[in-house]
Amino acid sequence: MPPAPNRAFASDNAAGAHPSVIEAVLEANTGHALAYGADDQTAECEQRFNDTFGAPVVTRVCFNGTGANIAGLATAMGALRGPHHAIVCTNWSHIAADETGAPERVLGTKLIELPSPDAKITPTMLDSVAHLQGVQHHVQPGVVSITQPTELGTLYSPDEVSALCARAHDMGMLVHLDGARIANATAALGGDLAALRSFTIDAGVDVMSFGGTKNGALGAEAVIFLRPELAEGSEFVRKQVTQLPSKMRYLSAQLNALLRDDLWIDLGAHSNAMAARLDELVRDIVGVELDGRPQVNSLFPRLRREAIGPLRDWCFFWDWDATVNQVRWMTAWDTTEQDVERFAAGLRSLLTELDSDCRAS
Amino acid sequence: MPPAPNRAFASDNAAGAHPSVIEAVLEANTGHALAYGADDQTAECEQRFNDTFGAPVVTRVCFNGTGANIAGLATAMGALRGPHHAIVCTNWSHIAADETGAPERVLGTKLIELPSPDAKITPTMLDSVAHLQGVQHHVQPGVVSITQPTELGTLYSPDEVSALCARAHDMGMLVHLDGARIANATAALGGDLAALRSFTIDAGVDVMSFGGTKNGALGAEAVIFLRPELAEGSEFVRKQVTQLPSKMRYLSAQLNALLRDDLWIDLGAHSNAMAARLDELVRDIVGVELDGRPQVNSLFPRLRREAIGPLRDWCFFWDWDATVNQVRWMTAWDTTEQDVERFAAGLRSLLTELDSDCRAS
Amino acid sequence: MPPAPNRAFASDNAAGAHPSVIEAVLEANTGHALAYGADDQTAECEQRFNDTFGAPVVTRVCFNGTGANIAGLATAMGALRGPHHAIVCTNWSHIAADETGAPERVLGTKLIELPSPDAKITPTMLDSVAHLQGVQHHVQPGVVSITQPTELGTLYSPDEVSALCARAHDMGMLVHLDGARIANATAALGGDLAALRSFTIDAGVDVMSFGGTKNGALGAEAVIFLRPELAEGSEFVRKQVTQLPSKMRYLSAQLNALLRDDLWIDLGAHSNAMAARLDELVRDIVGVELDGRPQVNSLFPRLRREAIGPLRDWCFFWDWDATVNQVRWMTAWDTTEQDVERFAAGLRSLLTELDSDCRAS
Amino acid sequence: MPPAPNRAFASDNAAGAHPSVIEAVLEANTGHALAYGADDQTAECEQRFNDTFGAPVVTRVCFNGTGANIAGLATAMGALRGPHHAIVCTNWSHIAADETGAPERVLGTKLIELPSPDAKITPTMLDSVAHLQGVQHHVQPGVVSITQPTELGTLYSPDEVSALCARAHDMGMLVHLDGARIANATAALGGDLAALRSFTIDAGVDVMSFGGTKNGALGAEAVIFLRPELAEGSEFVRKQVTQLPSKMRYLSAQLNALLRDDLWIDLGAHSNAMAARLDELVRDIVGVELDGRPQVNSLFPRLRREAIGPLRDWCFFWDWDATVNQVRWMTAWDTTEQDVERFAAGLRSLLTELDSDCRAS
Repeated sequence: MPPAPNRAFASDNAAGAHPSVIEAVLEANTGHALAYGADDQTAECEQRFNDTFGAPVVTRVCFNGTGANIAGLATAMGALRGPHHAIVCTNWSHIAADETGAPERVLGTKLIELPSPDAKITPTMLDSVAHLQGVQHHVQPGVVSITQPTELGTLYSPDEVSALCARAHDMGMLVHLDGARIANATAALGGDLAALRSFTIDAGVDVMSFGGTKNGALGAEAVIFLRPELAEGSEFVRKQVTQLPSKMRYLSAQLNALLRDDLWIDLGAHSNAMAARLDELVRDIVGVELDGRPQVNSLFPRLRREAIGPLRDWCFFWDWDATVNQVRWMTAWDTTEQDVERFAAGLRSLLTELDSDCRAS
Repeated sequence: MPPAPNRAFASDNAAGAHPSVIEAVLEANTGHALAYGADDQTAECEQRFNDTFGAPVVTRVCFNGTGANIAGLATAMGALRGPHHAIVCTNWSHIAADETGAPERVLGTKLIELPSPDAKITPTMLDSVAHLQGVQHHVQPGVVSITQPTELGTLYSPDEVSALCARAHDMGMLVHLDGARIANATAALGGDLAALRSFTIDAGVDVMSFGGTKNGALGAEAVIFLRPELAEGSEFVRKQVTQLPSKMRYLSAQLNALLRDDLWIDLGAHSNAMAARLDELVRDIVGVELDGRPQVNSLFPRLRREAIGPLRDWCFFWDWDATVNQVRWMTAWDTTEQDVERFAAGLRSLLTELDSDCRAS
Repeated sequence: MPPAPNRAFASDNAAGAHPSVIEAVLEANTGHALAYGADDQTAECEQRFNDTFGAPVVTRVCFNGTGANIAGLATAMGALRGPHHAIVCTNWSHIAADETGAPERVLGTKLIELPSPDAKITPTMLDSVAHLQGVQHHVQPGVVSITQPTELGTLYSPDEVSALCARAHDMGMLVHLDGARIANATAALGGDLAALRSFTIDAGVDVMSFGGTKNGALGAEAVIFLRPELAEGSEFVRKQVTQLPSKMRYLSAQLNALLRDDLWIDLGAHSNAMAARLDELVRDIVGVELDGRPQVNSLFPRLRREAIGPLRDWCFFWDWDATVNQVRWMTAWDTTEQDVERFAAGLRSLLTELDSDCRAS
Repeated sequence: MPPAPNRAFASDNAAGAHPSVIEAVLEANTGHALAYGADDQTAECEQRFNDTFGAPVVTRVCFNGTGANIAGLATAMGALRGPHHAIVCTNWSHIAADETGAPERVLGTKLIELPSPDAKITPTMLDSVAHLQGVQHHVQPGVVSITQPTELGTLYSPDEVSALCARAHDMGMLVHLDGARIANATAALGGDLAALRSFTIDAGVDVMSFGGTKNGALGAEAVIFLRPELAEGSEFVRKQVTQLPSKMRYLSAQLNALLRDDLWIDLGAHSNAMAARLDELVRDIVGVELDGRPQVNSLFPRLRREAIGPLRDWCFFWDWDATVNQVRWMTAWDTTEQDVERFAAGLRSLLTELDSDCRAS
């Protein structure tokens, strides 16, 4: 095998922290600052999110993605008068599949998981829960939670989000957006703040998680209440769900570094570009099956089965659906062209060798 | 007023991060590392905790103190078969008074708050809940949770913890220790690992929170299961209660920096010493009432009422019990002798002036 | 010992069902009726409660007292936007002491238990939680829950309830009343619907449990939302907390039988009278210590220790506080004069005998 | 239209109480009896369930079906160490679809709803959750909950339940059976206690709900722990989830009446027979589409759309799936041959008329 990439394709969660983030943490580390958000970095962070969304939003800094989802959804459940309101999402959604049941435990709320081939929800799909409304034996559809980009790497267009929000609001529901990889979506959909706003605040999203951790932070996320009146009680809810950072300045400083000059969008654009480049380099290799072009920073190829083990030993990645030999390759803000080229070269070499072994035998 | 201290006495949560912690984070920031604990720093952290306690404990790194308490207690509730088991604590305990009801919400568990003048629980006090046992109308005492040092800055001796654990175990209960300021207790009770072990693992404590944030970390805590069999399921529980850090290496690195060469004990000893020094300097000032000598890093003086506002404006601290003019002064790992001396000087100057104003009028 | 009473003094829960209740159930048992409340008896029950309170209240029939408390409080929590709002009650309150932690588990809500010598809450006592308001580390006082008559057999006057409601509403709180023995309170405070209204709807109570089980029903309770706008979502909440009866007609029929011609008040008056009579007959017996006259249907005497076992073997009752030889004697709707007289005679005989044994030895 | 049936086909929940049940309640209504299960009827009930299952089971009487499911599942969750264990069920299951999210709220547990065309779960279907095991991001399959007969009126054979239990136990899971209509299943699968045991205790089911309400009771259900060691703590759990009846004797008496001489099986057999008879009479009517013969007491016909409204106005029943003109007809213990014949006659008359109208136009 050729030299392995310096960075594997396991996850953007495996990437390190961006130098600007590190620098911001160091700068924030000067003397004392009041805990729990009464510090300068947090005030700056709140202002930066107002500027980012072009409106007076309410920002609640949290530790991690699951926590931000829970804190946002818990507050939304409060606005809806409680857990007899269900959260409608897809079977792929992180809250349904990858949070060990945190929503059910902490919110006491049922998730209605709509099967979706592309991890997206359409207005028409919401119709399937309309018959629950008003019947005392059924949970009441309360929040529709979408992920942008989705867990399958697909994207909602701004129009799609708008249409979904309109339908949800017509049904008396709120809209939550899990933006753990919001930077990748923003970069893919225009690459500026107007793009961000087009599929969030302008489209009618009520509350969202804004991810930093997967995009160059050490670990920092925020819940953004795009409709401030929904944020009532959110400071208590955040603490109650264990997501109030004591030395908040260090998390806010990370977010500030990412928000400054829209660095977060640049990082998202870079990881998207690396995924696109990887796709170009491997799409035609025999033994690699790929569906459409990657929209953000992940590829979900089906590989010749014998290749998966050796390839992973050489450069790590995760299985996606082992029953069909499907894996996930994910780029990050720090993935380099060299990483991508080395990986493609190694893959090509491995599959060629397997192929010739096969022919020889 | 004389020059103000460079660091106020608001909280050890307001202190910055220790240089060794910062350095460790920078060192951990090299390339990719698998998320969610499958990294070298976390493996090292687990080993360091084994060494610290002299036994194969189970370590679960968490974000913050409330989270570590919840993750540990949730796992303990599991071992006890669920939330019909109550947590017995004092009315002062952080879990009862300062976590916005997180235990009730996330655990679904009742807290039985025993009134305690010094924030400590004695074996005799446990007798007051014995009549609940076996009666289906009452929650069943399941866990006794103590804080060391307590929220009032008092300490359990190792013998006191041992006696309490013995009684609790006799009653079929588990013992949880909230060690958000474990360093201060360890420093005060001997200042070495033997001291730590004497009031935790050797005394019979089952599970504890081990605090780093208040002692020089950016933000890092751990749940330590001192009886490993109680840790069953704890990895799922941690995720479910939103306390699984994705880029865990950065938290583990902080803890490693603190554990290396027992730096954490040195930092605790320093903040304790600064509190003792402050006590010496202010104890005899007219207008300052202090009870016993500080055992760890906090003083709870009652001040002449007119002094509180001006003093706070000059150098911030929090009220403790406004109805009796009681405030809290807390030192930190980075409090300096100069900070203490300046504060004492300012206090003396202010009270003298108020006194002369008073006599003049 | 003389002949034992036909009915013991264990609890009004131990009493049978009133003939009118039985008759109503038999009458309701004719053919089919739609389940879950869409039946004639339930419609009648809702109308009867409107008439009883003189206003269009919202009635939700439930199975039992704990269930009615939980269903009412869960709905109130919803109106307050969720479980970061605490329920303020006394240490004696049924929800705090005798429901095995149901509120914490099902509501996820903290109970703040105010110590109270007479199981009552005064407006001044509410001041003790005012400092929690607006601080993100603390639960927010959301509901004050009182019991009328209290678990100690004491009564709030209408003015006391009014004053408490006024203070609670000023603090942004709701008022819940646990009326498991509402009949006894109503009988004691005037004995007509005006009396009931004076300490409930007219006093400002927002939501209450209305008890039937302890007052001659087989088993039937209701949550009454005295302010109908608070009832939003209550039909879903009731089902979600497992309190929706399928064949609701049989529960509604029981309540109708009790409400018809205010039978419920007559039954409460009778059991109150039996307690008063018992008090008269035993108050002067040497070896019996009683504080004030009973206000409703329970006595809490302290007895000569040696008498308790033999007396209980002869005619059952429960201990109240064994450490001070205090027991509870409770009358019911079906307690007779003969029961009371036989019990007093047996008690007198036993204590006399013990006394002469004592003198002899 | 011909004369309408005296009893509609809405639900077995709409049926009245059987005379033996009423008689038992009247007989239980003699004098005082201790509350909360310390009464003779409850002791008898526990013995009767031991005899019914031929083993020392643990019986917990509850109010309703949702409550019995929740109390049983909550106890099972305790045995599994808590809510990070999911409940696997079908999309049709009552706990998933018809309990307004009670499991999620009260248990804090995720339900994994497997799509199933016949509302049954096969061992193979359990394989679809095996990949979750041991991964900290996913809930852990803890309980598989089946319904017998299912919500679609289908039946598991004893062998099918045995095979499912074996697979579940191999995976470390427990098996819960919702037996809200256990009588209909028992009658259909042999009609004696051996039949009952064959698909419950003998097959390996761990805990079940045993329904009385839909089979001639006023309202009474029981949780039966077929493996008594799983019942640890169940008395506390029952109270905590609001399902402890105070005057339990009246519920136990109902169950005793049903269990005596296996009346419950006779009633189930009768309602099954009435459904079979209805099926015979209507199967060939033009405008009625039925799939297989009814296995228990429900039919799910698709009707000519125009017939549904008039038919329902004449004799009530519920829609099942309005989008395909499917309705549900359900018989009960008290459905008579005349009811069935009248209904069939009316249906035939209506459809004939519609048909001739159609031809005429």
